[in-house]
Amino acid sequence: MTTLAITDGQVLRPDLTVTAADVLVDQDTGAILELGSDLGPDADETLDAAGSLVTPGFVNGHCHVAMTLLRGYADDKPLDAWLQEDIWPAEGELTPEDVRVGTELGLLELIKSGTTAFADMYFHVPEIAAAVEEAGLRARLGHGIVTIGKDGDVAREDARTSLEIAREYDGAAAGRISTAFMPHSLTTVGDEYLEEFVPEAREAGVPIHYHANETTEEVAPIVDEHGQRPLAYAAERGMLEPEDFIAHGVHVDDREIELLAEADTGVIHCPASNMKLASGMAPVQRMREAGVTVGLGTDGAASNNDLSMLDEARDAAMLGKLAADDASAVPAEAVVEMLTQGSADAIGLESTRLEEGAPADFAVIDLEQPHLTPPHDLVSHLAYAAAASDVRHTVCDGQVLMRDREVLTLDERAVRERALEAAEALAARADG
Amino acid sequence: MTTLAITDGQVLRPDLTVTAADVLVDQDTGAILELGSDLGPDADETLDAAGSLVTPGFVNGHCHVAMTLLRGYADDKPLDAWLQEDIWPAEGELTPEDVRVGTELGLLELIKSGTTAFADMYFHVPEIAAAVEEAGLRARLGHGIVTIGKDGDVAREDARTSLEIAREYDGAAAGRISTAFMPHSLTTVGDEYLEEFVPEAREAGVPIHYHANETTEEVAPIVDEHGQRPLAYAAERGMLEPEDFIAHGVHVDDREIELLAEADTGVIHCPASNMKLASGMAPVQRMREAGVTVGLGTDGAASNNDLSMLDEARDAAMLGKLAADDASAVPAEAVVEMLTQGSADAIGLESTRLEEGAPADFAVIDLEQPHLTPPHDLVSHLAYAAAASDVRHTVCDGQVLMRDREVLTLDERAVRERALEAAEALAARADG
Repeated sequence: MTTLAITDGQVLRPDLTVTAADVLVDQDTGAILELGSDLGPDADETLDAAGSLVTPGFVNGHCHVAMTLLRGYADDKPLDAWLQEDIWPAEGELTPEDVRVGTELGLLELIKSGTTAFADMYFHVPEIAAAVEEAGLRARLGHGIVTIGKDGDVAREDARTSLEIAREYDGAAAGRISTAFMPHSLTTVGDEYLEEFVPEAREAGVPIHYHANETTEEVAPIVDEHGQRPLAYAAERGMLEPEDFIAHGVHVDDREIELLAEADTGVIHCPASNMKLASGMAPVQRMREAGVTVGLGTDGAASNNDLSMLDEARDAAMLGKLAADDASAVPAEAVVEMLTQGSADAIGLESTRLEEGAPADFAVIDLEQPHLTPPHDLVSHLAYAAAASDVRHTVCDGQVLMRDREVLTLDERAVRERALEAAEALAARADG
Repeated sequence: MTTLAITDGQVLRPDLTVTAADVLVDQDTGAILELGSDLGPDADETLDAAGSLVTPGFVNGHCHVAMTLLRGYADDKPLDAWLQEDIWPAEGELTPEDVRVGTELGLLELIKSGTTAFADMYFHVPEIAAAVEEAGLRARLGHGIVTIGKDGDVAREDARTSLEIAREYDGAAAGRISTAFMPHSLTTVGDEYLEEFVPEAREAGVPIHYHANETTEEVAPIVDEHGQRPLAYAAERGMLEPEDFIAHGVHVDDREIELLAEADTGVIHCPASNMKLASGMAPVQRMREAGVTVGLGTDGAASNNDLSMLDEARDAAMLGKLAADDASAVPAEAVVEMLTQGSADAIGLESTRLEEGAPADFAVIDLEQPHLTPPHDLVSHLAYAAAASDVRHTVCDGQVLMRDREVLTLDERAVRERALEAAEALAARADG
């Protein structure tokens, strides 16, 4: 047995109390062996956590990681125009190699901000899976299907690809990769394809992940065409099961909140993206009170524009209060839960909890910073004041992905250089 | 003449274009001498800016810097309860020494996040001024007056203190410190004190700074008692002049926006605080379109909970879009302007502009970070993706306050240790 000890830190427990403890990890199984004192001396490898908070790794429940190549490419436009005029044309130019390097750039950012697992919807998924395998993170991956504006054969091929990818990559990277069937949204994928492929996805045993109720413009056509709200429509098509999870859920009415709670379908709240695209304010407090599992996601870097889950937690607390018109809504404890457990539950990964037997996925946060002083309340600091740069070490599946800000599984300088070249060439093709 | 050269960087110009240039500074006058090429070799001191963006220093237009001691002390409560149950009782226990160390802790954070100037409303101002003098920043300082619940002599003494402080410290620290007369707000300072002291402040030639229209609860009593909206009431009392500036301005109606524009009174928008306290969404886009000078402020660390102006810029863009229900509102260019020029204009400091003759106040941002890659648009990155930790160097009045993340004017470790002790003792007194 090879062991890793994280020593002298303060540990954030599942009940959100903080206790001084060492953490001992079995690197062969990737599980936590023990929390206790003086566990460092006999371990094969140690990570110093003095003056630091050991937290469960952050879980980014909805992302398009390779979109880092489009960070800052187009901003300050409404969702429809932004997608149609800028993002989709540029994405049309992305090669598999672009997706690989964009993903690696995004994974660097995830590791450097303490994220250990994420759910991703994109295309050229084999490239994404290869990058995830190399980087050492956990991920639920899927190919996003869009059928509108495509003829039948092409559209069917796209849906078929999503299904095949979900089947093929489930369990890859020694189990760190899982998958989902991923129709882009209820308005961008035709009814006939949902009817045909959703039962096949069920049979394949993979969850279904899609954007839903992100903007009012996305709700109206479904009500017009089908005479029901989007999530009732989704439920009727068998897309509202406990293993499924939707992104956004901004414009959900009371009945849809009930549907989500009854079905135990997770919602990934993406506050930064919802604000930046002026999509609206998700009723996070009401969803949580109704018993809906709510996690957090950054969405893609083109609508955020970073992939830091600590930013997302702060945004979620702040936007949640505004949405509820109540400063006590979505408190620090709630966003810390959503940042870790909530996202993991929503996307169906084994929970990240700092306790014996749990997966050894964590982030170690340097508390010895002016902006984290004084330590009146470390949960408050995690929610409101900690930044990506405060993450010292990142551990996933018992392996050290970052030690003292140095990423060990990816060559940061080489990835950045390849990304600069790829982005420049991409912009030239897209603008040309 | 002693000179400082900032070499090999990309410089953000007043028109928000970016050009490769060295910057040469006269450290004796604190002014920019020249932007050009190859200015390093003859300078007395150099700062490397390769791979970095040289931006005007950020200006925090509304803060209570010493409140860093109360960071995380109480969260997730509405403004009134939070102030009355937690913050005011704890502030009642603050000694002058606490204010000194809390200020130093806050100044460390400001310098480390690229802020070179700020406006501050608090008490024990001599301690704050001494810390500012030591730290090397620019500041407009003032003693905040609260008269409600006090008897006449005590209340009058408080107002008198604010006036005397404003007179005494104006021009201190070789001109880096300026002052203002600072009634806390229109509801916490009685009409009779405004009538008596505002003319005296005018005579003393200092601006007036106060909280206004922060919450609906703050608007209603003025309408009830005086039959007019708060800013009409303020105008009538002579508190809406070009040199004056208000904090928040969340609940302003069209006529009040007109009044602000006509008077050329600045508004300091504090998006994080407004969200965290569920105060509401300031109509920033409408104010800017009406010609109001809008700057940005963090407010105190207890309602934010950090003092990073880059966070505030991102929050302002995002909240501004949501408030306007328009993703094109408050774009990246607007928040970068508000972060620098807008705040400087609002609080009446000489503008921070990177051009010959301007004050040498700037931040140097490390662009060689995954989350700032690729460089499609550096103004977008400044608004949406850059973080406090990306600031490499901070220069104010031609002096280097931070070089390669090391603060030169304050002893970071010693300040943090004193702050830990002071906060622990304060919490014990306040809870005891």
